[in-house]
This record gives sequence, C-alpha cells and structure tokens, in this order.
Amino acid sequence: MKLSGLLGKPSKTAPHDADTANAKFLLQGGFVRQEMAGIYSWLPLGLRALNNVQKIVREELDAVGAQEVLMPALESKENWETTGRWDTVDVLFKVPSQTGREYALGPTHEEVVTPLVGSFVNSYKDLPVAVYQIQTKFRDELRAKSGVLRGREFGMKDLYSFHATQEDLERYYEIVKQAYLRIFKRCGIDAKIVEASGGSFTKKFSHEFHAITQAGEDDIIACMACTFAQNTEIATVKAGDSCPACGAELKSVKGVEIGNIFDLGTKFTQVFKLAFTDEKGERQTPLMACFGIGTTRLVGAVVETHHDERGIIWPKEIAPFDIHLVTLHSKDQTVQDRIVEVSSGLYRDLQAQGHKVVWDDRADASVGEKLADADLLGMPLRILVSAKSLERNGVEVKARHEVEAHIVGLDGVMEELG
Amino acid sequence: MKLSGLLGKPSKTAPHDADTANAKFLLQGGFVRQEMAGIYSWLPLGLRALNNVQKIVREELDAVGAQEVLMPALESKENWETTGRWDTVDVLFKVPSQTGREYALGPTHEEVVTPLVGSFVNSYKDLPVAVYQIQTKFRDELRAKSGVLRGREFGMKDLYSFHATQEDLERYYEIVKQAYLRIFKRCGIDAKIVEASGGSFTKKFSHEFHAITQAGEDDIIACMACTFAQNTEIATVKAGDSCPACGAELKSVKGVEIGNIFDLGTKFTQVFKLAFTDEKGERQTPLMACFGIGTTRLVGAVVETHHDERGIIWPKEIAPFDIHLVTLHSKDQTVQDRIVEVSSGLYRDLQAQGHKVVWDDRADASVGEKLADADLLGMPLRILVSAKSLERNGVEVKARHEVEAHIVGLDGVMEELG
Repeated sequence: MKLSGLLGKPSKTAPHDADTANAKFLLQGGFVRQEMAGIYSWLPLGLRALNNVQKIVREELDAVGAQEVLMPALESKENWETTGRWDTVDVLFKVPSQTGREYALGPTHEEVVTPLVGSFVNSYKDLPVAVYQIQTKFRDELRAKSGVLRGREFGMKDLYSFHATQEDLERYYEIVKQAYLRIFKRCGIDAKIVEASGGSFTKKFSHEFHAITQAGEDDIIACMACTFAQNTEIATVKAGDSCPACGAELKSVKGVEIGNIFDLGTKFTQVFKLAFTDEKGERQTPLMACFGIGTTRLVGAVVETHHDERGIIWPKEIAPFDIHLVTLHSKDQTVQDRIVEVSSGLYRDLQAQGHKVVWDDRADASVGEKLADADLLGMPLRILVSAKSLERNGVEVKARHEVEAHIVGLDGVMEELG
Repeated sequence: MKLSGLLGKPSKTAPHDADTANAKFLLQGGFVRQEMAGIYSWLPLGLRALNNVQKIVREELDAVGAQEVLMPALESKENWETTGRWDTVDVLFKVPSQTGREYALGPTHEEVVTPLVGSFVNSYKDLPVAVYQIQTKFRDELRAKSGVLRGREFGMKDLYSFHATQEDLERYYEIVKQAYLRIFKRCGIDAKIVEASGGSFTKKFSHEFHAITQAGEDDIIACMACTFAQNTEIATVKAGDSCPACGAELKSVKGVEIGNIFDLGTKFTQVFKLAFTDEKGERQTPLMACFGIGTTRLVGAVVETHHDERGIIWPKEIAPFDIHLVTLHSKDQTVQDRIVEVSSGLYRDLQAQGHKVVWDDRADASVGEKLADADLLGMPLRILVSAKSLERNGVEVKARHEVEAHIVGLDGVMEELG
C-alpha cells in the first residue's frame, strides 16, 4: 500500500480532546474516524489491525471446537421480555418499526443464541456445543469515552457453550480461559485474570481478563509475574503482599477489561425451556456459559499498552503492516532516480517475499514529517532509503522500539528480513 | 467438519411456508435459521457460503484499487437531515437514545462516506478515491419475503468512488461494471445488465445486475448469449427481437437484482460541501458514484439459480465444502471396521491435500437420509464409502450435478481428485 494513495493519512496535529493514548494515536494516525461520540469508522489502516485481532480470535476458538455463526443485530422483543431484560437493561436500544413491532438492537445475544441452540439440542449426544460470532454490538451508554475503549457501537466476539453437566461446563470453561490467554498473548498483552464475583461462596462463577494500563477504569491488585489479580473493591490481598499463586510481589495498578467469562448455569436455558434426554432417559436442562471479547476495544487496549510519546508500537501479529518503507527524496536528479529505483525495487521484492509493506512514497512531505509519521503509525520495522544511505550502498533499518537505526547493505536486505 | 457435531443439521421436512427455493433449501439444510420475518441467523454451513461470496467480492474490488473500510451502522440524524432523506426514506429505522438524541440505523451509507472522504480530499491529487465496506444493513420493509432475498437485516457490500471529472467517473464506472461481472461469474451467475434509468436522455446513469430466475420480482427482456437486458416497463425491445448487442434472440424472463451501480453526480458531494482545488487552482465539487451488491441476497440468488428438486447444487467457489464424504455403516463388524478405517483415512488425507470436507459420519441416520442430505446440502462432489464400494476395493464418486456415480479404486482417489 502506498501512503500517497491511502485513505486516512496521518495528521500533523493530535485531536485536542483525546482523553487516552488510543483516542489520540488512532485518530491522529488515520486508523479510525470519529463519526459521533462513541461511534467510529474504521479506515483502511485501522481495519487491518482489527482484522488481525479477529483472525487470532477465530484461530484460537476454532482450535477449541467452537463453531462460527452470525446472528442478527435486530433481536426479538418477545425474547427480551421472556428473560425479563427488556425493561431492566438501561443500555438497550429499542428500535420501533413501521410495522408496529419493536426490536432490541443487540448489546448481547443470549436472547438469540439460547433458543437457536435449543432448536438443535434434544439428546445428551448433542452436547456439548459451542458457537461464537464476531459481530457489531450496540449499547446506549450515557457517556461514551476513552476512544474505542467504550463506544455505543463496537465489535465483539461472543461465544456461548452448552453442557450436559457442571463438570463438563467447568472443563470447557478452563479450556476457553487458556484460549483467551493465548489470544491476548498473541495481541501482545499479558492479561491478568480477575475473579469477578463472590468466588467460592456462590455456585456460579465469572472471571474478567484485564490489560494493565493507566487508561483502565478498574483498580486491581495484580501480580506482574503471573496472571493473578483481584479487584481492589473485593480484594483479599493488598499491594506489597506476596502473590498467592506464585509468590511474587503484588502491585496496585489500573486495568481495562478486555474479556469476561461467565458460568450462566440454567439462567437462560430454563426460561427458554431447553431440554435434553440424558443417558438414563430423563429430561434435563442444559447448563450454559458465555465468553466475551471486545474486538474493537482490544485494538484500543493494544495501543494503550504499546505506545510511547511519539506513537503506537504495534505488536507483530496486530500491526497493519510489517514494514514501513520510507523514501527520502533528493533534488539531485541522478541520486533521486537511484532512490526511486531502490525504493520501488524493495517495495516489490519485500511484498513478493510475503511481507506486508506500507510505502511512504509521498513527494510533498518533509523528512521530519515522514519520520514522525513512521513513529506515529508504529509498524514494527522501518526501512529508510535516502541519498545518505545510498552513499553507503545500503538502507537504514530500525525497529520501532529501538532508538538507533543501522545500515544494511543493499545486497543483504532481503536476507536480513527473512 | 463432521456432520455429527455440526450445529444446524439438515431437517427431514421442508419448511411449510417457504415461498422460494432459497428459503426452502437454506432453512431445511440448516444453512440459516429464521429468527423473525426477514431476519436470519447464519449457521456454520451458511456462513461458509457467505464468507466465500465475501472473499470473491474483496478480491475483485481490491484488484480495482478500492480500499476497504468499516463504517458504523448508527448514523447521524443531522447528516440525514442535511440530505433531506430523514423524512423521505420510509424504510429508515430511527433509533431513539436515552441521551435524547436519535440515530438512523443505516440502510445505506452516503450520509457517512461523503463527509468521511471529504475530510481527506483537498486537491485533485487526492482523487480519484474509492472505498468499500462489507457490512450489515437495515431496512424497515413493510413485507419481508423470499428467504434471504428481501430481508429487514442483510449483508451488503457498498462501494463509493469520488472523481475530479465526469470522464474519470465513467472510466471507473466501467472498470467496476466489469469487476461486478467477474464477481457474479465466480458465483456461478451470468448476470444481465439492465439500464435502470432514462438512459441517454438524462446526464446521470444507473445500471442493475440481474440473475435470471423464476423467484425474481422484475420482468426483463434479456439476451441469453450476452449481458444485454432491459426492464419490460421501459423496454425498447421485445421478446423474439434480435439482441441489439449481439444479434441473438431476446427472451422474456424474470430477474432478481443482485447489484446496482449509480452515477450520483454532485448530489451528495454538494450538500456536504466537498471541494478540491483543480490543476488551474480553482475549487471544484467532486463527482461521486456508488456501487452495491447484496451479499446475503447473492447467496440466495445462487441457490435460486443452482438447485434441482432435491436440493442445492453449489458452484465450486461458493460451496461451503468441496467434498461431501458419506460413510454407510455395516452390521458386519469386520466390514464396519474397514469402512471406518477407509473413511477416516480419506477424511484426513483429503483435508491434508487442501480439500474442504464435510463428513457424514452419523451413526443414527439411514442410507436414504444420508443420500438425500448430500443432495440437499449440495456440495460439488460426493464420495461414498460402503460395504458395496469396498467389495470393489473402491469408493463411489459422484458430482452433485451428475446422475450416475462411478467407482474409483482406493489407490486412485487422491490422484483423481488432484
């Protein structure tokens, strides 16, 4: 992709009202555009990062046997009345129709997935079953804030699993918990697992996954050496204590919730009258668990945990492009011809080798602008072609997280990048 | 994918109220589930077909330089008032918020994309630019019908292009028109191009792409040998005439609209005050075109044009799976062991070779059911392993569109399938 033709160019100035790093850098970099409070368009660069997150989510959930589906955003009012949530969920958008009926605009999908799965479950042989979707969700938040961290419209992966026994639910709950840790790890985040509800005193349980960042809304006591964490409000430990899981020192930090998982028991399966015949021939109510990851929020959390004062530092698997190729133009026509020849050759060869390359080929941007934009956009590797580098018959190579660039000879570039 | 574990199994009976082939077979086959009138969940099999359509759309549009974005479903009421469409589009869902504001739930995205692109266009050098998205759309239809052909919530690809001159718009319009023909062709549909508006008497123009099927709502006069067609209501030709484009005989048929393209002129760019500086330094209003394909409707149109009385006959590129592997069980344990060994070996080896395989491994389904389901689900190739086929040391192979199966020796299967 050539930067000159890209929709959503980096801007010279940061938005004046950005309250978080993700809001600042995603907007300034042209990754997203704010349409209204809490409502964003994803521009080509941002969509590539979001697609990378979605790809990781799909791979890890397919690997644990979950099946992908796509449920509608317009949900049945009757089903929301059945669960009693039509009048109790205050963030629920209610959509009137000219046909006289009303729809719920889905903030979550228990009201759809439970009867859906129920229509295919009749015997213990039909269980367990797990389905997920990656879909747009809607929440009528009173106050949208923190860039893509808390929006009125956002991307979410929601997974629902159905089980014949509590043991089987707990087995799968643990499998998905581990899959979640792999997903976050691949996104560059060492997630902390927070026990969200009363723990051992209640039969049902729930966990939150947090990324540690100053932009977080939650105060947590977390171990830096393992995944242990507690919410400060209900913590049984305090900062300075030893981690009950691994012994390392606990710290008081801010966390942003990037995933949550719930044992729902028979809460939804009962009201929708799901039933299966067990091995003894008796009718039973299946148990249900649900597992959420905010996909657009996760992109924001990645930025919160991976940036410096100059811009984003994308983790390898999330980066929209692997390589940011910068061409610095020269007024000496002979040198300029050589610069263009080397740059376009690299652009072609790197892509042929499987690299994803964004090429800053702009003729009207200054050296300072180009270097600042490379830092702002934050691709893992910057390759710079200039009169100076070509004097040494090479290009300047610098990883985004490094300070110093080094010269790599033209004949060694392809080999060095592998 | 094993059929025994698949969410959305084929049903023995067709839905009693299906008004079209796509409604009948997609519901009966477990490709989709109807949640409410005009509102569907896409189950694993159906989602795979939909994803195949989306992949083709992306490949062909990326190839003509369009950039993918993702705009929100919640759109600004103010922008819809700016274009005067807030009160005139009767299928517009209006969503109230507890914040006191109202949103439009997007049936189309001119009100979002025009100011979005406008914010990045300032000079003729920024043009042309083309962006597209694949996204869920909402229309408050009084009457939803015809399966996934006319829904209240549906998938759509919408592309918008912006140009400095009418010549450039017409150049790109023709490029996208050809890309559309390639997209439909890869979906197995020889689309007809219908001039939708006044043609040469109006400055702006528009074309519809139709698939010929009895389920279509439009009466058209079409050439079977080329893409020429006219809407009967404004036709200058009649059935039996020679095609003005190629000379073949014209026929009177039914068409379902699977795509449409419009020259929008400055209709939207003017009201949103888009402007660019041309090469002479003068400020000009960009021209705009838009191009739509209903992606979920296209899956329905594929079924309408590719089925027989027993079920769907998926075109190769759209088929959820390439191969439907059927295992017929035997009561003779030695034979049964051999059947399972051969079946699971094929399932493993075919996938290793890159084939997408759905395996009917069900123990509780009869021979008749299994063969009927293979026809209903409509994968391009059926491979059957049975006591009878193994007596001849082979498997029965049958293409979905063929009547007769033939035996292929076990040692030749992998080679025959390539």
